[in-house]
Order: sequence, then C-alpha cells, then structure tokens
Amino acid sequence: MLHAVIMAGGFGTRFWPASRRARPKQLLALATDTPLLRSTFERLAPLVPAERIWVVTAAATAEATRRMLPELPDGNILAEPASRNTAACAGLAAHAVLRGDPEAVCAVLPADHIIGEEARFRSALAAGADFVARDGGLLTFGIQPTRPETGYGYLELGPEHTREGEWRVFELQSFVEKPDADRAGAFLSSGKHLWNSGIFAWRARELLDEVRRQIPDLAAGLDRLGEALDSPRAGAVLAEVYPSLPATSVDFGIMEGARHRFTIPVDIPWSDVGSWSAVAERLPTDAAGNATQGRVLAENAGGNVLVSSGPVLAIRGVEGLVVVATPDAVLVMPKEDAQRVKEVVEALQDRGWDDVL
Amino acid sequence: MLHAVIMAGGFGTRFWPASRRARPKQLLALATDTPLLRSTFERLAPLVPAERIWVVTAAATAEATRRMLPELPDGNILAEPASRNTAACAGLAAHAVLRGDPEAVCAVLPADHIIGEEARFRSALAAGADFVARDGGLLTFGIQPTRPETGYGYLELGPEHTREGEWRVFELQSFVEKPDADRAGAFLSSGKHLWNSGIFAWRARELLDEVRRQIPDLAAGLDRLGEALDSPRAGAVLAEVYPSLPATSVDFGIMEGARHRFTIPVDIPWSDVGSWSAVAERLPTDAAGNATQGRVLAENAGGNVLVSSGPVLAIRGVEGLVVVATPDAVLVMPKEDAQRVKEVVEALQDRGWDDVL
Repeated sequence: MLHAVIMAGGFGTRFWPASRRARPKQLLALATDTPLLRSTFERLAPLVPAERIWVVTAAATAEATRRMLPELPDGNILAEPASRNTAACAGLAAHAVLRGDPEAVCAVLPADHIIGEEARFRSALAAGADFVARDGGLLTFGIQPTRPETGYGYLELGPEHTREGEWRVFELQSFVEKPDADRAGAFLSSGKHLWNSGIFAWRARELLDEVRRQIPDLAAGLDRLGEALDSPRAGAVLAEVYPSLPATSVDFGIMEGARHRFTIPVDIPWSDVGSWSAVAERLPTDAAGNATQGRVLAENAGGNVLVSSGPVLAIRGVEGLVVVATPDAVLVMPKEDAQRVKEVVEALQDRGWDDVL
Repeated sequence: MLHAVIMAGGFGTRFWPASRRARPKQLLALATDTPLLRSTFERLAPLVPAERIWVVTAAATAEATRRMLPELPDGNILAEPASRNTAACAGLAAHAVLRGDPEAVCAVLPADHIIGEEARFRSALAAGADFVARDGGLLTFGIQPTRPETGYGYLELGPEHTREGEWRVFELQSFVEKPDADRAGAFLSSGKHLWNSGIFAWRARELLDEVRRQIPDLAAGLDRLGEALDSPRAGAVLAEVYPSLPATSVDFGIMEGARHRFTIPVDIPWSDVGSWSAVAERLPTDAAGNATQGRVLAENAGGNVLVSSGPVLAIRGVEGLVVVATPDAVLVMPKEDAQRVKEVVEALQDRGWDDVL
C-alpha cells in the first residue's frame, strides 16, 4: 500500500526571525493562508488516508506537529532526537511503515514546499508509486523548469524508460548541483534537465536494501531502531542510536549510487520557498514594488521585502532590502543576501542570544 | 526669587518609535543613563529648590512627569490641555509663579537637552537671572558654536551691554533661522553668532507685560487663566481657554519684538538631541562605525544607527541607515533623512495606526 512520509526536520534558520528552532518554516504560513506542513498534509489526504501518512520531525517540534495534524495517529509522528539529514530520516520511516505493511511503498516529501495544481501533483505521485510498486527502483520527481533558476539543484534525464499512465518515466542520469546563470540557461533549453524537488517514491524494503548495500553503517543503526520501534525501549534506543547515524542525503547518499533509479518529469507550479526572496514573489506588491505582509508603511521606498508578524514596520527612502519584524527580533539585509540569513543566525548563536533562535 | 520653568511639551515624533505621544523624548533616556527630563531637573536642583521648579507638560504626560519628579509639589506640574507653543507655555508659568512670588524671576528651559559642565551652566543661569532681576529685559542664553552646524537656529550678537560676574551680557541683535552650510561656516568664524538654546531668563511680570504689549489676545487669555488658577474652576478654565490661545514661540512672538533683549554667550557642551543622528553621536560605536544601543548584531555593515529598546536587531550588509526597533514598531530609513521621522509619523497617523503613535 502507498504510505506518505513527510520530512519535517527544518531548523528554522532561513526565515529567521519569523522562523525559530521551535517554530521552523514548515509550521509557518509564509505568504500562504495555511502553514506549509498543513498544506502538505491536505495535498496528500485525497490520495493517502491519514493512517498511512507519517511525519518525521525534530523532537522540539513534535508536539506542534501533532497539534497541526490532529488527524494523524500518534505513532505516525516520528521524533528525531537529532538531525541526521534525509537518508536517516527516510530509513527510519521505512522501518516504521514496514512493521504493519511489509510491501509498503513510500512517497517521501518535504513538508515545506508550495505546489500548484494539486490534483495533477497527486496523479504524478500515484503514477510514480504504481511504477515502483510493480517495477522497483528508486524514483524521484523532477519539476519542469520554467526559468533559468540558479537557486535549485537539477536532475539530468537519461533515456526514457516507460510510461505510467499519462506520465513518462525516465532513467535518472545524475544529480547536478546549483548551476551558474549560463548553465541554468543551457539546462532550461536542453529539455533534459529538471528541478530537483526532493520528492521520492520507492518500496520501503528496496530503500533499506540500497542503504544496506551503500551505507552499511547507516543500515546497521537503522536495523537496531527498527527492532526496537514497537518495544517499550523505543524512545531510549532512538535517543541512543539516532544521533550517531551517518548524516547524508537521500540524493547523494542513496540515489546517486542506486542500481535502478528513475525520474518522472512533472509540469506543475512548484517552489521550495527557499528564502525571503522566494516568499516575496508570492506576496502582494505595492506600486513601488514592495512585497509586504503585515502592518507595513513604505514611503519613498521601492523593491523591498517587508514582512511583519506583529510590529508596525515603517520604512522610508530605502531600496532592495529585506526587513522582517517580530516582537522580539528584527532582521535587515539586502535582498541579494537573502540566502545568507543562516550566517546571521550563526552569529546570533555565537553571541549566545538563544532566546531568539 | 529665582524659579525654574521646565518646558516639557514634546510630541514624541522625532524619536518614533522609541518616543510616543504618551512617552515623548524628555521621558526617555536617549544615549544617556537618565531620562532627559530627570537630568534637567537634577541639573537645576543645586541652584533652585524643588518648591520653585515648575514643569509645563501635556496632559497625557502629566502623570509620568509626576512619577519621574517626585520631589516636586503637585501644583508645580502644569498640564496643558493642548499644545500652544512656547509663548503660551511661558505665560502660563509666569502666572503660576506670580501667585506666591510677585517679584519672581524665571529661568525657562526645555526639558530635553543634553548639557555638559553643569556647574558652569548653573553659574551662567544664575548670572542671567541676577542680571534681569536687577536691570530687567528678556534674556536668552546662547551656546558658543564649536562647528558649522546647520541643524540649529542662531542668535546674532549686538553690542556688549555689561558684565555679570564672569559672564558677558550682550544686546541681542536678532534670531537667525537654520543656515545653509556656507552661512553656518561664516557664523562660526564671525564670533558674533551663537546657537539658539531656547533657554531664557526674565522677571515673570515683565514677560507678561511684553505679551500684553505684543500679543494682546494671548495676554487676555493668560489673564483669565491666572485669575482662575487658585480657584476650584482652574481645570475647567484651563480646558476652555488654553486650546484657544494664539500659538507662537517665545523667540518670534515675544523676544524679537521685546524692548529690552539680551543674550549671554555660554561656552559649554550642549546638544538639543534633535534627531537620531544627534543621538548616534553620543552612543558607543563599533569598529565599522555603527552606533548601537540594545542587543544589536551588525555584520558586514557600517555607519548605521542601530537602536533597540528590546528586540534583537540583526543587520547585515547595509550602510548609513537608522534602524530603531521596539516590540511593537520598527523604523528603517537613511541617516540623512533622520530629520524627517515626523513625516513617517504623520503617514502612520493618516493610516489610523494610532496604537503605535
């Protein structure tokens, strides 16, 4: 049966000060009416019943996740005692679903993306799941690029492998790191490159087989977790084993070396909402090109991203800035540095100002 | 006897969002340990006993003023039901002091200046008071300029009139509006120009005589107030009459046309702390030239004025900005616009966001 695994392990750094450790991006409504995690759940619900939707999240956000998704059985929220990247996260979820469903197929998705044409998205997801259920392999969903985006990683298509209903299934040639502008332009015109969405489908058992073959240390740790999951010692074993698991991503740790890897190109609106600039594209804009959210006054000021979660934000005579105001923390930086909020958060950490992190 | 009249009628616009209607500049500690009003009181206390120190302030700030100056008799805090500029304020105070002291001499001072060499300042104040007590006339204290400041009004000296102890008393030739840079340079080298401090001395009766001669409407209104001050109707008469008084300044409404007007040049450090830029000159500065107050992180950023009354303020990659953060309002503007905070406040008023004004 198809299970959906929502990876909700964000740190809350890229959207500081709106996001915090205890309130990371997926729990926020960034330029949306609904928090991203809730939207992700609702997007899946018509395809997968709540009993087969799983969320892997940080211990610090498990309770907030539970409150946001009351439909989920308690046991479907898996709390990571430490963050060990997506390979460990996907492996833990595979063990969890296999307990009750040895033939489980997993669709694995980040909790914090914005996706349009949701019915079409579910159709692609179902096709990918049907494909791997029948033919096996690890499959990733790629998004058809609509612009020469330098902020995303790309997938390079191999030969077409088959069709699954209306969807074309390709062999996956390789993962490509974020390109410069020239390469991004070439990728867009090549017709052979997709944005890497970080959304996957596989049989849970096959995922674990690939982990065992490629990252035996990780597999051994995951096996210990799998055995303990239903025991009273589950929490203690998780707390002991999980933090020592090798930290690597699904992309580079598992997919790149997988024996059978595939991709389905999906032509839907998609954003990983990776920075304040990405959020700004979705906010209402005033005549001077200021993207604003909250009580914002912009006088003689243009092209700014002005977001407040409470305080009145008054701006005059400035351009191209990101200003984010909350009652206890304020960020001001140029829009072109929007990817570097993390460095600010690290500097705040160095100062010991943990109360606002 | 010498009375001190502190004019504390500020609106709280120039230092928004740190200052508000109910918490104007004189109640704040701007780049100081002590609120400006309290400092003004303590500066005067060695010269004038609390029983003869008077404060004229807005009704909205009367209670906060009382709490900040518990030494003052209750009746020494005069609450203006509306703001009618300094001539009305000085006239009201003159009536108030004359009730108990028909020969009262008043030193009249703004509540919100920073003044160094306080003993020397008191010496000048006492000399000015002695001079007017004996010889009459309206006297203003001018500050010896130390730079070609374009942000202040100036006094032009007339002929030297006399000496009062170590202090020289000049006839006051004229008031000069804020000059441009060239004229400010000429003023500095002329030796005949002083910064207009807005600090005065006169006999209360003579001040009222000049008001009667020059602004009969104001005098008539002030007479009605004076008669009612000791009656149970005082509050009602004040509320009725004061808002209708002509609004003009001491400088232009009274001093310019006064028959006998004098000035004493005073060579002490002085600032009217008129904008965030002036505050910045008194704040600690980091290696990149950021003047900061509160929990501020400035990365790759220089020459900014960064003030927080609570929130953590994190800045990266910006220059020459004023950023002021409070829990419920944030201001961002270029330093060179620091004089224009008032326009921001007016725009906020137009929006009806009175809760942060």
